[in-house]
Amino acid sequence: MLSWIIENEELKLVETPIPEKSDGYEIIKVSAIGINRADLLQLEGMYPSPDGSNSPGLEVSGTIMGTNNKVCALLPSGGYSEYVRVLKDHILPFPKGYSDLEAAALPEALITCYFNIFENAGLKPQHSIIIHGATSGIGSFAIKICKAYGATVYGSVGTTDKIELCKNLPADFIFNYHTEWPPVIKDKGGVDIIFDILGGGNFEKNISALKKNGRMISIAVMTGASAHINLASVLMKNLSIMGSTLRSQTAEKKAELTQSAVHHLYPLIESEKVKPVIDSEFPFADAPMALERLKSRNHFGKLVLKVD
Amino acid sequence: MLSWIIENEELKLVETPIPEKSDGYEIIKVSAIGINRADLLQLEGMYPSPDGSNSPGLEVSGTIMGTNNKVCALLPSGGYSEYVRVLKDHILPFPKGYSDLEAAALPEALITCYFNIFENAGLKPQHSIIIHGATSGIGSFAIKICKAYGATVYGSVGTTDKIELCKNLPADFIFNYHTEWPPVIKDKGGVDIIFDILGGGNFEKNISALKKNGRMISIAVMTGASAHINLASVLMKNLSIMGSTLRSQTAEKKAELTQSAVHHLYPLIESEKVKPVIDSEFPFADAPMALERLKSRNHFGKLVLKVD
Repeated sequence: MLSWIIENEELKLVETPIPEKSDGYEIIKVSAIGINRADLLQLEGMYPSPDGSNSPGLEVSGTIMGTNNKVCALLPSGGYSEYVRVLKDHILPFPKGYSDLEAAALPEALITCYFNIFENAGLKPQHSIIIHGATSGIGSFAIKICKAYGATVYGSVGTTDKIELCKNLPADFIFNYHTEWPPVIKDKGGVDIIFDILGGGNFEKNISALKKNGRMISIAVMTGASAHINLASVLMKNLSIMGSTLRSQTAEKKAELTQSAVHHLYPLIESEKVKPVIDSEFPFADAPMALERLKSRNHFGKLVLKVD
Repeated sequence: MLSWIIENEELKLVETPIPEKSDGYEIIKVSAIGINRADLLQLEGMYPSPDGSNSPGLEVSGTIMGTNNKVCALLPSGGYSEYVRVLKDHILPFPKGYSDLEAAALPEALITCYFNIFENAGLKPQHSIIIHGATSGIGSFAIKICKAYGATVYGSVGTTDKIELCKNLPADFIFNYHTEWPPVIKDKGGVDIIFDILGGGNFEKNISALKKNGRMISIAVMTGASAHINLASVLMKNLSIMGSTLRSQTAEKKAELTQSAVHHLYPLIESEKVKPVIDSEFPFADAPMALERLKSRNHFGKLVLKVD
């Protein structure tokens, strides 16, 4: 089978044996592969895989080898392959009404949203939430699922032309995080939750936009990691600031999150037809071009590789 | 009856009518009054009471008027009085084996510990925890209750001579937060939880001392509110940073916390003889002297006013 590996910060296509089945694992014949920013960071040497693997790829859709069972799955690494070996507990049912591409783009976004927004921040339908980075794969999916759940949802983007791009997302309001806020959010009474991928540059604005008992969850620091914090605001407003990365969770925690996310959110995504936004599809052989597009930051939603 | 009120940042003893009983409230004939740093901040004009009251005092022990029922209670303000009117749901049973002074010193410390350490940070017996400000009323009580619960407990103090003062506390280790840390804590593998009253000056050290999945809870900022935060550390270590003040909670939340704290922690404090450390007792008439002593920061444990 063919696999993409990383050598000297470049992707290289190699021929390797199909992995063998073992206890607790399944082999998936891959149909499509979801691309994540973590893959790009790993390629650039800035985000080594916790399992030491030199093969990127955190999510796929496909068929359990030797059956007709269509599934999608969360992987610690190695998803850029024609076949993958995956822990049974990290496999998700194929969502009703999804295409192979959409199913490949689901696991990371779904489980990240479940872990951070639902489990950690405790989103309720009566809450308001800011999703920073509305055009990103995770941001666009988070907006859809939070809105389907009943919350009031504000999305942010980094350039004003992207506001227009977001008109098909179900957000209540989209704003430019460089220029229009936090006044525009404070005029709406602030928010209960902020789901942040920006980091340092917007940290104090985030704190200022949160209502009493507000919660900020940080999963990435795309505008830098460094910020000033005024602890008096944090304690007078009873705020919580939480950080997490899905990739660094133990296999047991990921299994628990996978099962819980399916249990709690599949009914919603299937009944409300919540699907990841797909920016573009690339043939498996064009993985390097897909990562180039991700790097450009001109995409809107998820990039996916299609395996023939 | 006599009450202390605040006028022009000075305490003034005034004669006022005994409050009248109304639905949902009880009148307590006060035996003793616990003193808190919030009283001093309120006197200095820096921490106005949320109910607009000019009378300090957040906790008392005493007897329900017209009965022999001994109790202690949490108050929004007005505790520096011979009689107080208090919401029934904010009344705690008088703990077995406690003196009037000890019972007056209990409600704020118990409920603050319950809210922050048990409810918000989720302390488990297998956890390790740093309690900053080990000689403070809240710090010394937190050390006792966390240790009785089975946790590994480290306490910090601001001067080396206070380490000696803490030898009768059940902490596993006491350190000077100006000089000895965080290396001394990192050598022990870090901690799961930090209960912080210091604030800005120790914030980055707190973050660095936390283990993966660690939680920091901030309830005061005695060394300043301003700090630098590295969000990359927060998310790579999956940290949570939470702030809260008990006083700003709604009456409903305080009622819920009061009942939960009694339910979950009274068995422990009664069976393990966990009591607040009493620094000193002052006659009711000497309230200003008591606040002077609190201001000096030479106390160890709680200061209490005794009503004849």
